Amino acid sequence: MTLHLDNLPRTIYVEREGNKPLVVMIDQRALPGELLWLRTDDWRAVVDAVKTLAVRGAPAIGIAGAAAVMLAAFSLAEECSSAALFAARLRKVAASVAEARPTAVNLVWGVRRATQTAARALGAGRSTHECAEALYGLTEALIAEDEAANRAIGAHGAALLRARAAAAGRPLGLLTHCNAGSLATAFYGTALGVVYAAAEEGLVARVYADETRPVGQGARLTVWELAQAGVPTTLICDNMAATMMAAGLIDAVVVGADRIAANGDAANKIGTLGVAVLARHFGIPFYVAAPVSTVDLDTPDGTAIPIEERDASEVLPAPLSGVSVRNPAFDVTPAELITAVVTERGAVSPADIGSFAKE
Amino acid sequence: MTLHLDNLPRTIYVEREGNKPLVVMIDQRALPGELLWLRTDDWRAVVDAVKTLAVRGAPAIGIAGAAAVMLAAFSLAEECSSAALFAARLRKVAASVAEARPTAVNLVWGVRRATQTAARALGAGRSTHECAEALYGLTEALIAEDEAANRAIGAHGAALLRARAAAAGRPLGLLTHCNAGSLATAFYGTALGVVYAAAEEGLVARVYADETRPVGQGARLTVWELAQAGVPTTLICDNMAATMMAAGLIDAVVVGADRIAANGDAANKIGTLGVAVLARHFGIPFYVAAPVSTVDLDTPDGTAIPIEERDASEVLPAPLSGVSVRNPAFDVTPAELITAVVTERGAVSPADIGSFAKE
Repeated sequence: MTLHLDNLPRTIYVEREGNKPLVVMIDQRALPGELLWLRTDDWRAVVDAVKTLAVRGAPAIGIAGAAAVMLAAFSLAEECSSAALFAARLRKVAASVAEARPTAVNLVWGVRRATQTAARALGAGRSTHECAEALYGLTEALIAEDEAANRAIGAHGAALLRARAAAAGRPLGLLTHCNAGSLATAFYGTALGVVYAAAEEGLVARVYADETRPVGQGARLTVWELAQAGVPTTLICDNMAATMMAAGLIDAVVVGADRIAANGDAANKIGTLGVAVLARHFGIPFYVAAPVSTVDLDTPDGTAIPIEERDASEVLPAPLSGVSVRNPAFDVTPAELITAVVTERGAVSPADIGSFAKE
Repeated sequence: MTLHLDNLPRTIYVEREGNKPLVVMIDQRALPGELLWLRTDDWRAVVDAVKTLAVRGAPAIGIAGAAAVMLAAFSLAEECSSAALFAARLRKVAASVAEARPTAVNLVWGVRRATQTAARALGAGRSTHECAEALYGLTEALIAEDEAANRAIGAHGAALLRARAAAAGRPLGLLTHCNAGSLATAFYGTALGVVYAAAEEGLVARVYADETRPVGQGARLTVWELAQAGVPTTLICDNMAATMMAAGLIDAVVVGADRIAANGDAANKIGTLGVAVLARHFGIPFYVAAPVSTVDLDTPDGTAIPIEERDASEVLPAPLSGVSVRNPAFDVTPAELITAVVTERGAVSPADIGSFAKE
């Protein structure tokens, strides 16, 4: 199959308008109907984009976190009379950016990369303007790192699928949940990075995409980007995954992750746990594709991962008297249900992910 | 807890306007926003209501099938010059009614009850008008039988839950999928009949209702009727069931069935298979509540049950270039994942349902 990755727009990037730094992001709330862009020099608008899911996906919100701190640094460099005041106010901004969403560790990671870069620049006696420029450079570097990591994840994942396709003697049916695609990253994607790399080798017959209620990342984003790229794609409701597996249409599941605990438990979009249980029942391998930055060594296991509970109106638009709603945005798949974690440094058993990430 | 079953309207019934027979049905497409009624003397309108899901649920469409044949008999008695012509045309109507939806065996069963009654009446030398009256009586009887069967199913199911609540020392959290409630029957419901009977004994802490994509029978119908009846109710997306089970909130699953094969495999709303696999994984009993008329001895196992594939627009309202859609309306849960089938004659192991139904 001929892929058309050039049809996929970059999800988040930075550019200059004269001297003014801008963050440019796809407004994913408008997809698949429209490809709209958000362009802003205001760090608060980036945080707002993260909170409203205009930009989402663990790697992408990691970049957005660093980019927000960068925009704030440019503003604060104008406003603050001293480096000390600049540093203090930047720390406050960073803390507020890091709280935009609670589950994905990448957001905290992106903000920390930014605060470390700022502290290093100021510690070396650079001006506040030079510090802001250093953060601009960091954001560009994180974006480049992210794409490179995703392409490496794709290559390692494709190697696993190559072996399965060879054993089956035919290209594979894959299932994915939510969107861990190019739209969840700067470019290329993690789980869908594996799909793209495998599809370029002719290993993919079809991708089944769960619609991923209540926000519909599968129905709105995954099928859109797979179709843009030219991968044969079938949309199903979340509750149809079992019947597709029972019918023998699914050879492997590939999903992303928002945080992987030291013991290999993985938080990902609500519904992932159910898919993992089904995959185990039907004897189908279940792969988690994520950069090593998703591993949080400070989180010993899944029970310590905070799970964001979102508004009931996402599930039930018009409240009904006497009816309550649960809307956890993520769930935790225990390590024992994960066949392998595919990172940019290779595929690893979830039981070994902690020591692997420490290296 | 005090139940308010008197707040639940009857789902389908017959009445006379002068001599004219009418079928009256809740138009379930308007729920939960509005309680609208369809009143018709045209058998085609009843078939249309079945096809468009205005009336749905295996027991309810069984009654609708008989009611449609009854309305046709009243029209044909006016139109046909001979009993032979009447019988021939009524047979054609019956065949067309039976084809309105393919999966639920109750529709065929309801139509067969009607054609048998008609054949008996005509065979005994009754007039075509008397035959139509006999069908009116049959429809009333089926409605009364259905409610009585549901109340018996409720009592047998409550007995199972009573033992579990006693073992747990507290009222139970239950999960249901789709709507096998009063709205799926003439009155009271099968799976929700079990809930109502158990709730009246104080055995139910809360019911978690899967929203049941793509048509939303859980989100639109189940939570509405449970709230009407006063049962504590929480709506979740289908993909949240696993996380609720993992959190220990679910003590038992109760669902309905559209057709049970002779070996105990059960077809029910799409997503039921996935819930059954999850229940097995988390060690939670999985009960199918259905009248014996749901058992189809002519269907040896689940592979022989025809699965209705509905329109893609239910899943994806605006077509997307390059994206196909699957929309099977039902799936098949294998007998080995079913803890017990709860019928009006008692609870039985799915392995024994064939011989049980033969008696």
